Amino acid sequence: MADKVLVYSRFPKSMIARFAERFELLDTRGQPAQEVFSADELGSVRALLTAGGSPLDTDAMDLFPKLGAIVCYGTGHDGVDLGAAAARNIAVGHSPGANAASVADIAMTLMLATTRRLMVADQYVRSGDWATSKPSPMMRPQAGMPGRRIGVYGMGEIGRKIAARCAAFESEVGYFSRSKYDLPYQYFPTLEALADWCSVLMIAVRAGAATQHVVNADILGRLGADGYVVNISRGSVIDQKALLAALIDKTIAGAGLDVFEKEPHTPDALTALSNVVFSPHIGGHTLESQVAMQNCVLANLTAFFEGKPLPYAVKSA
Amino acid sequence: MADKVLVYSRFPKSMIARFAERFELLDTRGQPAQEVFSADELGSVRALLTAGGSPLDTDAMDLFPKLGAIVCYGTGHDGVDLGAAAARNIAVGHSPGANAASVADIAMTLMLATTRRLMVADQYVRSGDWATSKPSPMMRPQAGMPGRRIGVYGMGEIGRKIAARCAAFESEVGYFSRSKYDLPYQYFPTLEALADWCSVLMIAVRAGAATQHVVNADILGRLGADGYVVNISRGSVIDQKALLAALIDKTIAGAGLDVFEKEPHTPDALTALSNVVFSPHIGGHTLESQVAMQNCVLANLTAFFEGKPLPYAVKSA
Repeated sequence: MADKVLVYSRFPKSMIARFAERFELLDTRGQPAQEVFSADELGSVRALLTAGGSPLDTDAMDLFPKLGAIVCYGTGHDGVDLGAAAARNIAVGHSPGANAASVADIAMTLMLATTRRLMVADQYVRSGDWATSKPSPMMRPQAGMPGRRIGVYGMGEIGRKIAARCAAFESEVGYFSRSKYDLPYQYFPTLEALADWCSVLMIAVRAGAATQHVVNADILGRLGADGYVVNISRGSVIDQKALLAALIDKTIAGAGLDVFEKEPHTPDALTALSNVVFSPHIGGHTLESQVAMQNCVLANLTAFFEGKPLPYAVKSA
Repeated sequence: MADKVLVYSRFPKSMIARFAERFELLDTRGQPAQEVFSADELGSVRALLTAGGSPLDTDAMDLFPKLGAIVCYGTGHDGVDLGAAAARNIAVGHSPGANAASVADIAMTLMLATTRRLMVADQYVRSGDWATSKPSPMMRPQAGMPGRRIGVYGMGEIGRKIAARCAAFESEVGYFSRSKYDLPYQYFPTLEALADWCSVLMIAVRAGAATQHVVNADILGRLGADGYVVNISRGSVIDQKALLAALIDKTIAGAGLDVFEKEPHTPDALTALSNVVFSPHIGGHTLESQVAMQNCVLANLTAFFEGKPLPYAVKSA
């Protein structure tokens, strides 16, 4: 009999098809596990597959008395209470770096689309306004990439890939992170100093309690009227209400957002704005990164059921 | 009295405001010059400012018997009959390289937006379909940039900047151009061979009679069902009817287009497609590149009226 894995978050079938070949999946489809499966079924679950952002606290862990492994699909694990897991001897795994290029590339896509006003441009052509030479103040030339100051918040694998790409666009790159690294980019000791300096803030920091709402009204104000913010980390890093206000009153020029506070829900007032480009948390959604992340999940689950340490374990803070 | 310059193409006022400070502009606003100004007025015109793509042949030159300089705003000069100009001793100037980064960046923007299906993604969030978990086959993961084969057609200043940017995205870069250069990219001796090899064809070749419709049904077929074409050169390089057919019948996966055969007109059947991203010929429209191009125009016009050779003269083929 195949080993059982409870699927705790909602995943498209195509994403978890490979796991079904190796394990018996108890798929909640994102519904509360106790409403989908009996206490008996939950009681036999030893391994759990989750999206790192899904809340998974002590109470949730109580549902699975035999739980030995929590495996996150993707690099994030901000929803998992690592302390509670450690106290119960539950191993926690993820897919470090497997999606870094894919996420960095959606960050670049959002930045370029936002600063060059691509959505407005596309609509200008499609609507026929271009053909009739209808003036559009939104189509005025904007600052380009050469010489633009790009601030990268967080210098992990994703931040480094964003920085390398921006440098190829002849932009100046600065960064803020807890540590200063041996990298050819200007280091700023605080997020405030980085925001004062840059015109585009790229949020690539690992999310968690310490980064909750750190990009707030003050930081947005420092970016200024020509400033942009791009978030491909987690919605929790930005104070979404402050961002909405800053976008409406033109405190900043625009934003590119792949992540939101309460996914998949986005405020109507936000999605009505023409100076924002949206994507539905697809940073990691390329074929290669899906395969790479799935490989990490399979390796973690296989090792666990063989009684071995997880090869891609989350390093406790 | 200020020197007179006839403005032959239609330019937004903001683009030519700096020229009006130095010269007396006779602005046709893109209308036929002989309908806007008297034969007497045209007869006194010695210098002409044009968009390089606007047709300017022998008959047009006949309108200006005293014409001594044709100055193109931008790098292109494909509309100007260089042989006819040379036969009349008319100097032809342009703005070489001034917009190369800006154009390369719109190429990257269009490529990323097209291959990551950004317009569909943005609409998926805005429409509320994401919030209600409505399945969207268009949102399936696509191939990303690492390892992707990007074919650059034309290795001038714009092509080189596109290639350098693609390399930073961890893509493989190949190119076809008349000459093989000492560059770290694979050279292909024919456009056919490049199209067979690559999945994204970036058209960065200088347009002219020799490149008319060279990207035809055969080349598009070689790109294949996972292939994309991005054009930031001139619409004339692509057989637009063949492109439309290839996009509709899925011979290729998609396209990103900044230029079109008969600008500003685009076929309704083309602008209705969801697998194309459009921009209204804004490749050179960044603040820096506008200033750089204007500097070239001013230097060319000033030199001409001082009886000196144009500093940014078009090199005859």
